[in-house]
Amino acid sequence: MTALQGKSLLGASLAQRAITTFHGVNAATGEPLEPPFHAATSSDVDAAAALAIDAFAVYGRLSGREKGGFLRRIAENLEAMRDVLVARASLETALPAARMHSELGRTCGQLVLFAQLVEEGSWVDARIDRADPDRKPLPKPDVRSMLRPLGPVAVFGASNFPLAFSVAGGDTASALAAGCPVIVKAHPSHPGTSELAGHAIRDAVRERRLPEGTFSLLFDGGYEVGIALVRHPAIRAVGFTGSRKGGFAIMQAAAERNVPIPVYAEMGSVNPFIVLPGAMRERGAEIAAGLHAAVTMGVGQFCTNPGLVIVDDSDASERFLHELQEKMAATAPAAMLNGGICSAYHEGLATVAAIPGVDMRTKPSAADTRSATPALFVTGESAFLADSRLHAELFGPATLVVRCSSPAGMREVLRLLEGQLTVTVHGTDEDFVAHQELLPLLESLAGRIVFNGYPTGVEVGPAIVHGGPYPATSDGRSTSVGTRAIERFTRPFAWQNAPRSLLPEELRDVGAARIEN
Amino acid sequence: MTALQGKSLLGASLAQRAITTFHGVNAATGEPLEPPFHAATSSDVDAAAALAIDAFAVYGRLSGREKGGFLRRIAENLEAMRDVLVARASLETALPAARMHSELGRTCGQLVLFAQLVEEGSWVDARIDRADPDRKPLPKPDVRSMLRPLGPVAVFGASNFPLAFSVAGGDTASALAAGCPVIVKAHPSHPGTSELAGHAIRDAVRERRLPEGTFSLLFDGGYEVGIALVRHPAIRAVGFTGSRKGGFAIMQAAAERNVPIPVYAEMGSVNPFIVLPGAMRERGAEIAAGLHAAVTMGVGQFCTNPGLVIVDDSDASERFLHELQEKMAATAPAAMLNGGICSAYHEGLATVAAIPGVDMRTKPSAADTRSATPALFVTGESAFLADSRLHAELFGPATLVVRCSSPAGMREVLRLLEGQLTVTVHGTDEDFVAHQELLPLLESLAGRIVFNGYPTGVEVGPAIVHGGPYPATSDGRSTSVGTRAIERFTRPFAWQNAPRSLLPEELRDVGAARIEN
Repeated sequence: MTALQGKSLLGASLAQRAITTFHGVNAATGEPLEPPFHAATSSDVDAAAALAIDAFAVYGRLSGREKGGFLRRIAENLEAMRDVLVARASLETALPAARMHSELGRTCGQLVLFAQLVEEGSWVDARIDRADPDRKPLPKPDVRSMLRPLGPVAVFGASNFPLAFSVAGGDTASALAAGCPVIVKAHPSHPGTSELAGHAIRDAVRERRLPEGTFSLLFDGGYEVGIALVRHPAIRAVGFTGSRKGGFAIMQAAAERNVPIPVYAEMGSVNPFIVLPGAMRERGAEIAAGLHAAVTMGVGQFCTNPGLVIVDDSDASERFLHELQEKMAATAPAAMLNGGICSAYHEGLATVAAIPGVDMRTKPSAADTRSATPALFVTGESAFLADSRLHAELFGPATLVVRCSSPAGMREVLRLLEGQLTVTVHGTDEDFVAHQELLPLLESLAGRIVFNGYPTGVEVGPAIVHGGPYPATSDGRSTSVGTRAIERFTRPFAWQNAPRSLLPEELRDVGAARIEN
Repeated sequence: MTALQGKSLLGASLAQRAITTFHGVNAATGEPLEPPFHAATSSDVDAAAALAIDAFAVYGRLSGREKGGFLRRIAENLEAMRDVLVARASLETALPAARMHSELGRTCGQLVLFAQLVEEGSWVDARIDRADPDRKPLPKPDVRSMLRPLGPVAVFGASNFPLAFSVAGGDTASALAAGCPVIVKAHPSHPGTSELAGHAIRDAVRERRLPEGTFSLLFDGGYEVGIALVRHPAIRAVGFTGSRKGGFAIMQAAAERNVPIPVYAEMGSVNPFIVLPGAMRERGAEIAAGLHAAVTMGVGQFCTNPGLVIVDDSDASERFLHELQEKMAATAPAAMLNGGICSAYHEGLATVAAIPGVDMRTKPSAADTRSATPALFVTGESAFLADSRLHAELFGPATLVVRCSSPAGMREVLRLLEGQLTVTVHGTDEDFVAHQELLPLLESLAGRIVFNGYPTGVEVGPAIVHGGPYPATSDGRSTSVGTRAIERFTRPFAWQNAPRSLLPEELRDVGAARIEN
């Protein structure tokens, strides 16, 4: 086992000075975990940034094969520390070992997916537009272009996926695949897990003989280091998954820079879940069971957790609600990721329960600073339309069912919502014909629409979109999951009449480019 | 000839009320031109926006073939009014008829290029990732995705390309190609040209039986209408080419919205032009002639005008300077686009001429409120490094030559520069070997590098990049010229387990998508 050292990784070195320290916490018990973690200083931020700039000059020009080998090595190094990593991640998050095992599989699979993408190489969108010296009235130049990496990227680990959206998660994998050095600000809620994953990447940097500044990892119990990183002139883009408050602070810091930079912040959503009347009649009980699993899985701590259920006002819906209520009530409380998330959950429950016209169908959970009891709320469309607090995300195993008196009422509810990551609709073929006005509205609302399924469990692949209109994400033109995520950290660059020897390999040879003229 | 009416086009209707009016101006004489133009009101902005939202529900779902037919019809309508359009554009901009004829060709060519792009259809980046119900531990869903249009787009006409970057220019063509309705804010410097081009688009909307809100055109002599448009909730993206001041104001208005939107502002740059020693010795006189043409063409009013020339300190450079000076001094004054641009040019000349260490090699132009005399300044690297006013764009037929004492000095000059649209380098094969450290620096600085050529004359095609790091553009990940410009107005959207009949045509059939799993 790698002994934890509790210090930021500045390329190949450990940060030495520290003014403050903080501890990881056993999420189930609240007890502090060893060792103490040293908060990075502003000079650590400068050091990591300077190393990243140096590294970019080399790393930004590596071949796809070289970057692929590096990404595969990171995955191998993570696999080699599987047991230690899973144990520490479970301790710090209260998520069961089985979940951590599968999340590690997803994390490594993601790294290999990006390795395959860059090894295959066509993602750079190489375009060759050949010269025509005889063109009238003006000769045509030779123009060739492709996507190039932006430069050093800051990545913020997310609390709810300590592996797959954290130090070695999707933002890091896609930025490294693009050719960008990465500086991760570790989430303070799982510092030990972060350090272990950081070692896996740092070791891969050394083993593949890459410039040390290709990767650094900074610890901080507060917000200063993260904001300093976003403000640092060396940083050219930011990846973040977390709360709206955190995302907004990063967006603002990025916009206030002398040179503003793109921020890809995934800030969650309520993920509307619509059951149309035919589906409700045919398989209400089955949908109730699936929905219950989606709402309570992982103690409801997914960005795609369905927090808002929209149904018609019918006997079938009443039976569905009854079914859902029984299942929610029978689900045992479970520990949440950290105390802050848990107290926000309890405050949110109290707020929603007190809103006029909202009926809480589950018993209030006992006051508990670490664990959450699933909660089911029911309301009607007029109460929902009247109070915007019901439109906001309640992070945890809770959901709100809105009974709508008509298809028009359903549409009115949906029109009021902000941008979402996902929207789900259950319906029969007849439902989709009868409610065809609904579908364009659903598309305008989200980044992904799920038919007759559940939004949790985001497939990692070439076609997935995990993003959506603001404020679900800061930049609704992007996805943070799947191979398209690499595009976030690139820009197109054109070479005009360049000597062959000065072109990147992808643009040298005719036949290599996707588009040729 | 279409009689000009001087009124905003709100879909198929003319705006009726007006509180203020303004006139187009004969750019060569300063005389006002008929008719008066009515400034749009805030209710006109609302009306155009409401029409655009309605139109998007239909226009956003048209096939590529239908959009292509529309774009081709716009080009045909523009061609049909060629003589009237060229005459009015020449009058309002003082640009010669020959230039207007070729710019109209470029404008129509651009529309046809986007028509071809959407008719061919692969730009949507369709991806099909098929289901695998037997996958362990979890079944794999069917996920399909492609790029979809963002929604109504606001486009600001540019003063310096009254056709190609204005009402029917590249921003409009690419947004319409993407499936976005467009509301243009006409540039007040060529309102008659704008109205004519607006008629061509409005007529094409009617002829192709599209929703009238697919296109609207708003007039205003000031800034209020443009900012109201950017702030309007219906607008989902902005395209702009113009001054940094204008671009910054739009960026700020967009960032302050409840739902921030992407802004694609192209704000110009100094376009560094480097002559390496070998090229200077071999063909200094030829480069001086080419550079002179690039600096003075169109009275220097191009965003890619080379405003900063970097040379070594040698006898060959001295001869080059002498050659350039003779040509600049022999070039007659010419009328600029408008009085504001002309007075800014004269102020800029006076500012630069007064900076210590800067030598003005051409005679100061006579005080003239409408026309510009070409200007050549020469300085050394230390004076250049010491004064940031020398790093800024001076819009017009002026250029500044910086003599550098060493390759390191050249790199120091380049490191100080902000983001640029283009960078040009003249060199022999030996020069590129000797100065290989320079090339990564040039790439980091701009969106396009030109070898042994001139940055003016931006090729319109699949490979071009007309964009660059901030502040050359507000979003350095984009290009405003060429087929890649369409991507600015799109976002990826994913369908999971969708019934075949509810999928867009591009995603229905296996074999149609670029990426299939």
